[in-house]
Amino acid sequence: MAIITLTTDFGEKDHFAGATKGAIYSELPDVKIVDISHSVSPFNILEAGYIIQNAYNSFPKGTIHIIGIDSEINEENKHIAIKLDDHFFICANNGIMSMICSEIAPEKIVEINIHDKIQSSFPVLDIFVKVACHIARGGTLEVIGKTISEIKPIKNITPFVNDDKTQIIGSVIYVDNYGNVVTNITRSFFESIQKGRTFEVSARNNKFKKIHNRYSDIVNFEIPEEKRHDEGRGLVVFNSGGFLEIAVYKSNSATVGSASTLMGLSLMDAVSVSFSTDSILPKSLE
Amino acid sequence: MAIITLTTDFGEKDHFAGATKGAIYSELPDVKIVDISHSVSPFNILEAGYIIQNAYNSFPKGTIHIIGIDSEINEENKHIAIKLDDHFFICANNGIMSMICSEIAPEKIVEINIHDKIQSSFPVLDIFVKVACHIARGGTLEVIGKTISEIKPIKNITPFVNDDKTQIIGSVIYVDNYGNVVTNITRSFFESIQKGRTFEVSARNNKFKKIHNRYSDIVNFEIPEEKRHDEGRGLVVFNSGGFLEIAVYKSNSATVGSASTLMGLSLMDAVSVSFSTDSILPKSLE
Amino acid sequence: MAIITLTTDFGEKDHFAGATKGAIYSELPDVKIVDISHSVSPFNILEAGYIIQNAYNSFPKGTIHIIGIDSEINEENKHIAIKLDDHFFICANNGIMSMICSEIAPEKIVEINIHDKIQSSFPVLDIFVKVACHIARGGTLEVIGKTISEIKPIKNITPFVNDDKTQIIGSVIYVDNYGNVVTNITRSFFESIQKGRTFEVSARNNKFKKIHNRYSDIVNFEIPEEKRHDEGRGLVVFNSGGFLEIAVYKSNSATVGSASTLMGLSLMDAVSVSFSTDSILPKSLE
Repeated sequence: MAIITLTTDFGEKDHFAGATKGAIYSELPDVKIVDISHSVSPFNILEAGYIIQNAYNSFPKGTIHIIGIDSEINEENKHIAIKLDDHFFICANNGIMSMICSEIAPEKIVEINIHDKIQSSFPVLDIFVKVACHIARGGTLEVIGKTISEIKPIKNITPFVNDDKTQIIGSVIYVDNYGNVVTNITRSFFESIQKGRTFEVSARNNKFKKIHNRYSDIVNFEIPEEKRHDEGRGLVVFNSGGFLEIAVYKSNSATVGSASTLMGLSLMDAVSVSFSTDSILPKSLE
Repeated sequence: MAIITLTTDFGEKDHFAGATKGAIYSELPDVKIVDISHSVSPFNILEAGYIIQNAYNSFPKGTIHIIGIDSEINEENKHIAIKLDDHFFICANNGIMSMICSEIAPEKIVEINIHDKIQSSFPVLDIFVKVACHIARGGTLEVIGKTISEIKPIKNITPFVNDDKTQIIGSVIYVDNYGNVVTNITRSFFESIQKGRTFEVSARNNKFKKIHNRYSDIVNFEIPEEKRHDEGRGLVVFNSGGFLEIAVYKSNSATVGSASTLMGLSLMDAVSVSFSTDSILPKSLE
Repeated sequence: MAIITLTTDFGEKDHFAGATKGAIYSELPDVKIVDISHSVSPFNILEAGYIIQNAYNSFPKGTIHIIGIDSEINEENKHIAIKLDDHFFICANNGIMSMICSEIAPEKIVEINIHDKIQSSFPVLDIFVKVACHIARGGTLEVIGKTISEIKPIKNITPFVNDDKTQIIGSVIYVDNYGNVVTNITRSFFESIQKGRTFEVSARNNKFKKIHNRYSDIVNFEIPEEKRHDEGRGLVVFNSGGFLEIAVYKSNSATVGSASTLMGLSLMDAVSVSFSTDSILPKSLE
């Protein structure tokens, strides 16, 4: 049975997501529909790209992912369907797929051209659903679009490295439900520059000399639980998606605070990593 | 396989929606359950009516829609089941179905009378689920209720037109996830009064002389992208449901602002349309 | 077909819930996945316990409930699977199951020990999904863990009764979507202490002498609807889960106000019940 996922900025309240599911079941009664997220910030391509990149490959090969962000068609915003890593993605050509495609080369990209048959002011429901159901039935991408070789890139998704490779300057690409702040610095990128050197991560006036694998790595379990004060402490981890993340232990933006609220970090803010030369810290950090 | 949809004001956090789904699967293991919305504002009949009206007909004929808003039974608030447009609706008789029924005549309305057998302080789970599963199994409405001929009306859902038909005074019936402001003026109603005349839409101190079909109609694509300043500009469209909507291009209430935040428009605020006489603007607008 | 439910603090936006569903379908294409809640406040064990306790038994026997709150494994936070009331629960041993287990004795508790085979920084997706799918296939708990006899308790979940049984001091354990304030005083506990005496419920400076079964019990339907002023009035009910709840009639925290906003009641605040001696009110209340 085919699986179709939905990632949109429709929000939790409006009828858009429900209507889209109704339209899918009207075409394909036996499909499974899975919500990935409908709470992407309105028109936020970067958030949508991060969410779909981290969710898609938990699904079985062959899954069809509808991404409904900024999908109104116009002369600069065409609709595309992509086959990549044996998954299918249907979205506007607005940069959403730029992050994933920079890691994994697409097998096929088509610009959807079925619009002459369908007048629509709700393209996710009218166009994306049609394309998704076509693919779910085993149809090929060539039938619903013409092959193109490139998609629209998105700016500022890769971190900057200085010439002598003593510094990475990344930026915040996502703030999660816990107020943890995710950067565009991946573990593999970090390690390719680090080469074993000591380092310091800086985010505003917060400095960290260690990157953990688990949030509770900062807890000293030898101290009795009632004497510990770890909730609300900052730390850096590589998160489950492999991204460098500034976090706060057991954070809650509404109560103890979070990396976002306590450190004042927002989308697109800079996060840098300075590396020592010869395994000592650089002069500027002494 | 039957489809049962849920539209409620239960919110995203509480156990109510999950428990309702559990109760449905306990009766009918093979049904499909689809969330339309659980984020209707508490007790907001108007919002619920707008959402269900815009979602239901994307679903296949025969779909059963549970609407759980203000559903506690008492002598003034009875439970009803309606067959309309080959869909089934189960809700309290509190005006929710008034908008849909004013457009499409119901085939059948019954007042549910199975309450003597079921003591309940959670009527959606105890009563509505029972009725939905009965219908899903092919049962008739007459078995679970007695036929009635009218439902409770809701006030202020149709716009007002002055005697010489130079003005429509509508009101805001919904604010969507993008902060766009939806009025009760439908395209067909508008056109039936307009009859080709020029017009001006007024919402507070904002005036618009054009109604678009797409949000990006206001963009001049001949100007290079980096020199455009369209994000945050106001416009009027007929939305995908056919309602006149005051919108802001690529709006986001939290960042660039939205029609709701930038123009200060809320539920029930007036939005008017003035028509010219003899295809010129009326004196008051000159 | 097996049912797996999800109760987490992942929120509505992040990829975590979607990825978890993808992982389940990758292992078990034919399972039904039901969201109970992803909007538990981050790391809030008490809220999660209340939600799962009130949702689980609407589901069919045999349902598998994944509870993903504070589930990072460390030496103090082990993973467990519990069979109770013919349902299965998979979570961290952090107190979440303490409320349910104090009402119904578990049939079986195991500490999950499959971690040597699975390196994970996303335990819900990597560990809980594996265990859930194992159970869904008919596997026994003993295969994935070693039997233990006790789970970690949670503090302050049972109300206090004074020695002469003239007062119950309970506390707020949940604030629902309507701003209604749920206490840890159950109907059965209340009645076991009350034994027919008159009483007074106190929450801050609000006093109530009656506990209703329905919210609309406070409405006098003999007064014409347009002359009533019931919206926004406070009352006490036993809610559909059987808990004493301070409520406001047709409340909405954003408009007319709610028990939480109007009475200033928050999680862990005290709510007390004073009983009369010899069926008259105690001196302190005269």
